[in-house]
Amino acid sequence: MVQTVRLAVIPGDGIGPEVVGEALKALDAATSGADVEFERTQFSLGAARFLDTGDVLTDDDLDAIKGHDAILLGAVGGVPGDPRLAGANIERGLLLRLRFELDHYVNLRPSVLYSGVVSPLADPGDVDFVVVREGTEGPYVGNGGAIRVGTPAEVANEVSVNTAYGVERVVRYAFAAASARAKKKLTLVHKTNVLVFAGSLWKRTVDAVASEYPDVAVDYLHVDAATIFLVTDPARFDVIVTDNLFGDILTDLAGAISGGIGLAASGNINPDGRFPSMFEPVHGSAPDIAGKGIADPTAAILSVALLLDHLGHGGPAEQVRQAVAADIADRGDARRSTSEIGDAIAARIGA
Amino acid sequence: MVQTVRLAVIPGDGIGPEVVGEALKALDAATSGADVEFERTQFSLGAARFLDTGDVLTDDDLDAIKGHDAILLGAVGGVPGDPRLAGANIERGLLLRLRFELDHYVNLRPSVLYSGVVSPLADPGDVDFVVVREGTEGPYVGNGGAIRVGTPAEVANEVSVNTAYGVERVVRYAFAAASARAKKKLTLVHKTNVLVFAGSLWKRTVDAVASEYPDVAVDYLHVDAATIFLVTDPARFDVIVTDNLFGDILTDLAGAISGGIGLAASGNINPDGRFPSMFEPVHGSAPDIAGKGIADPTAAILSVALLLDHLGHGGPAEQVRQAVAADIADRGDARRSTSEIGDAIAARIGA
Ligand SMILES: CC(C)[C@H](C(=O)O)[C@@H](O)C(=O)O
Ligand SMILES: CC(C)[C@H](C(=O)O)[C@@H](O)C(=O)O
Repeated sequence: MVQTVRLAVIPGDGIGPEVVGEALKALDAATSGADVEFERTQFSLGAARFLDTGDVLTDDDLDAIKGHDAILLGAVGGVPGDPRLAGANIERGLLLRLRFELDHYVNLRPSVLYSGVVSPLADPGDVDFVVVREGTEGPYVGNGGAIRVGTPAEVANEVSVNTAYGVERVVRYAFAAASARAKKKLTLVHKTNVLVFAGSLWKRTVDAVASEYPDVAVDYLHVDAATIFLVTDPARFDVIVTDNLFGDILTDLAGAISGGIGLAASGNINPDGRFPSMFEPVHGSAPDIAGKGIADPTAAILSVALLLDHLGHGGPAEQVRQAVAADIADRGDARRSTSEIGDAIAARIGA
Repeated sequence: MVQTVRLAVIPGDGIGPEVVGEALKALDAATSGADVEFERTQFSLGAARFLDTGDVLTDDDLDAIKGHDAILLGAVGGVPGDPRLAGANIERGLLLRLRFELDHYVNLRPSVLYSGVVSPLADPGDVDFVVVREGTEGPYVGNGGAIRVGTPAEVANEVSVNTAYGVERVVRYAFAAASARAKKKLTLVHKTNVLVFAGSLWKRTVDAVASEYPDVAVDYLHVDAATIFLVTDPARFDVIVTDNLFGDILTDLAGAISGGIGLAASGNINPDGRFPSMFEPVHGSAPDIAGKGIADPTAAILSVALLLDHLGHGGPAEQVRQAVAADIADRGDARRSTSEIGDAIAARIGA
């Protein structure tokens, strides 16, 4: 029996449509013989749509997206400083709103240094870890406010909200992920010595769940120390579990040391399956290079592998990853266009 | 006329006393012929004191410290996981309390890659920047709380407080610092697209003060992107101004790429001069190597240079820095003890 997956495709802005095009080629190639087919609906969302209609994400958009099984997103965001976008915060209103409304409480961001990729580190070692970033709480909740704005007496607050409900579910996911990996190691990253209330909740939760996973070795690092280890000994990491903001920071750094965010894929996952999960490259819309056909589609293609994993198609997912690894190993110095890279990877998947 | 400086010395825990001993040698050497003398009072504070007396920092301690002109601190903090310290948060109760009570609103952390130092980066380039980290606001204020602790309904909040008063004064300091440097470039680091209230205050403040410094080039980076540039192009930075938590994270990373936090110095400065400023290495008390005489005292010695700068003795400060640079250039692979390094640097200062 063939599984039909309703896939919402959000190409977005800048290089988003270009990299999504290549990602879909990879998806087609990886699933051509498999017992799954994709029914695609394209959503025009992002800065371009906002400039056109004044809408960032309507309730109708959201309902329509909820009617899908999964989402592939390119990148959203206009040209920085564009005065016409001054009133709109596309990141909050679209990207974060989707993550929150669709309860994407796991933001999964693997870091693998593929052979052939040049790291900025002199001696990176064997980099192969995954960050499990909480996606629906922390300082991202938007529970801030300001008084006396624009006066010398202005006070602007930001509130980080952390719940046992929210922390436990993502910590459980991280332990399960660690337990399924070869190294079986989980590192909690937080700042427990300063953020004592949130830190204590995270620490107690990890300690409690750890007792159910005697096979997983657990350690803890303050976020500042974690950045040091990411550049001096990234091979020490296996699974990192951390809050929304620390995860944002650590995964950009992790992307940089493993060859650049041009290679970094991510999944915004609702493990319960109540809402569609969303797969996207970690990079942004890069308006400066948009339309030139020079964006690297690899991160978007690797996001397709995460999508396939999520849908239970581990075989095709692995095919995508192997094709990417083989392509990267052969890259050398030749400059290829976005579609040349996409075609090369799709061809390897089919081979 | 000879200036008399009342110096409070807080050796602290672990390797603190060892590195402070060497720092004082450097201070003596640098000021032996100068028109300044130091009246030292030693304060026994930290985990050891807490275990002894149950006190972290009494009001009497604080009053006595306030009666000084400057503070030299080694490092505080006991052995991680020591059950006798479970109730005490030495970092919050001592280090952070001093920073807050003494209104250390500028946390100054220079990053220089000295020639001869091995960076974990393959091609670091010319690293020479300074982070001006806000020291009295942000998520460090301790305005968090939790309800239903230990139950499945627990909620733990952390509040980041940012005021026009607090942001403007540190931003002004950063602009003045940038204007006095060769590159004259200031980078604001924040997360304005997510922390919209605090981010807006920081952004507006930088924009407003920028108009008074037409000679300073200003740019902005999200904190996640800033970590990428710190490993791919650290030479792009000159002065970074940022909030307390982002500054904590960025300065550990900055220390790592410029040869390790064994070399990273810092000043907790009250520019108004109402309270004594405090100078300390960025590293911690490292209980695992304490008492072995193998800690690197360089960061503590460089903190003495910042202390001398602050007191208006730029000449002796520069002597210390040059002695450190010369010592580092000649280090090679030989393992030297803490006091061998301290003696060598002190000898160069005197030479
Ligand atoms: C665009 C921005 C809101 C987003 C985030 O902070 O989560 C991005 O940096 C990311 O990591 O996906
Ligand atoms: C010990 C800790 C409270 C402190 C901080 O977070 O400021 C330290 O990491 C630092 O950077 O000086």
